[in-house]
Amino acid sequence: MNFLEERIVKEGIVKAGNVLKVDSFLNHQIDIDVYRQMGEEFKKRFEGKPINKILTIEASGIGIACAVATPFHVPLVSAKKSTRINIDGDVYTAEVESFTHKTKNQIIVSKKFLTPDDHILIIDDFLANGCALQGLISLVNQAGGTVEGIGIAIEKGFQIGGQIIRNMGYQLESLAIVEGMNDETGEVFFRENK
Amino acid sequence: MNFLEERIVKEGIVKAGNVLKVDSFLNHQIDIDVYRQMGEEFKKRFEGKPINKILTIEASGIGIACAVATPFHVPLVSAKKSTRINIDGDVYTAEVESFTHKTKNQIIVSKKFLTPDDHILIIDDFLANGCALQGLISLVNQAGGTVEGIGIAIEKGFQIGGQIIRNMGYQLESLAIVEGMNDETGEVFFRENK
Repeated sequence: MNFLEERIVKEGIVKAGNVLKVDSFLNHQIDIDVYRQMGEEFKKRFEGKPINKILTIEASGIGIACAVATPFHVPLVSAKKSTRINIDGDVYTAEVESFTHKTKNQIIVSKKFLTPDDHILIIDDFLANGCALQGLISLVNQAGGTVEGIGIAIEKGFQIGGQIIRNMGYQLESLAIVEGMNDETGEVFFRENK
Repeated sequence: MNFLEERIVKEGIVKAGNVLKVDSFLNHQIDIDVYRQMGEEFKKRFEGKPINKILTIEASGIGIACAVATPFHVPLVSAKKSTRINIDGDVYTAEVESFTHKTKNQIIVSKKFLTPDDHILIIDDFLANGCALQGLISLVNQAGGTVEGIGIAIEKGFQIGGQIIRNMGYQLESLAIVEGMNDETGEVFFRENK
């Protein structure tokens, strides 16, 4: 097991309905050392790719994306949910449906910050059915940029999102792939990691 | 001028209605070096305080809070806006009104992550009328914790928020305090920094 899987086993809480709560170290409360290790691990896994920008989506993706942008030493762009009054009108948009929150969101990014010259690493905390990810890929494609890879903290391997993304030929690296959970024993089962 | 004021002068865009857009380096697109410098500066300004946790509010506070948590080497907690289905019921809540987005939000934090033993540094990107900040202070007080200080990237010094917080005796450190803006010339005027 890697550092993230070990931490999930130690502190993750399994709830009915395939819910895995990792809010003591990954999102609600954040262990900055875990984020730093994640950044370094993604740097290794995408070594050699001409990545010049990180793209993520608010809110919980931002912290991880900052930790990844640090070793790559590139700027990051955070796509916004819904229209904000202080964002200029000149934006790319995609519609995404949240599995967790059962809501549809318009996600937007200013055209200033995604261009045809961009080689993008997309970063997010969770991958389940992959709708948010599909929206982010759409934003990069609309800009004419290149998706160099996708880095995820925790993938739910028993849901469809990861398979779709890999089928499309993207390099998708998930630091922990959960194959199953038992909400009676609290056990979490991982796909074997490389 | 410090590094942040210089960057605001270089890239900030002044719009009518006292709107200052810094989305090329501070929020929509993020320059990770600016965040790192901010973290180091807050570490200096709150030197000697027994800070054991950073508290911020999603979304744009999270990245800065990560950059501050790094030199302090403490965990950070990100208060959530509105009720999410994957947060436990056992939460502290406060109601805040956003100046920018003209919306009222319930902000919540799990009782697990704020305790009477916590000595908190509150971090946010903007301070205007200070409602978000008042909500965060309320969350710490509800938990019986101690607010050791408040660190803000950009304060609008011509609005009431900063004065209220300083009147209440909190150590409030804003890296750039904007005293005025001219949307015809694009000029930004800062309060003299220490």
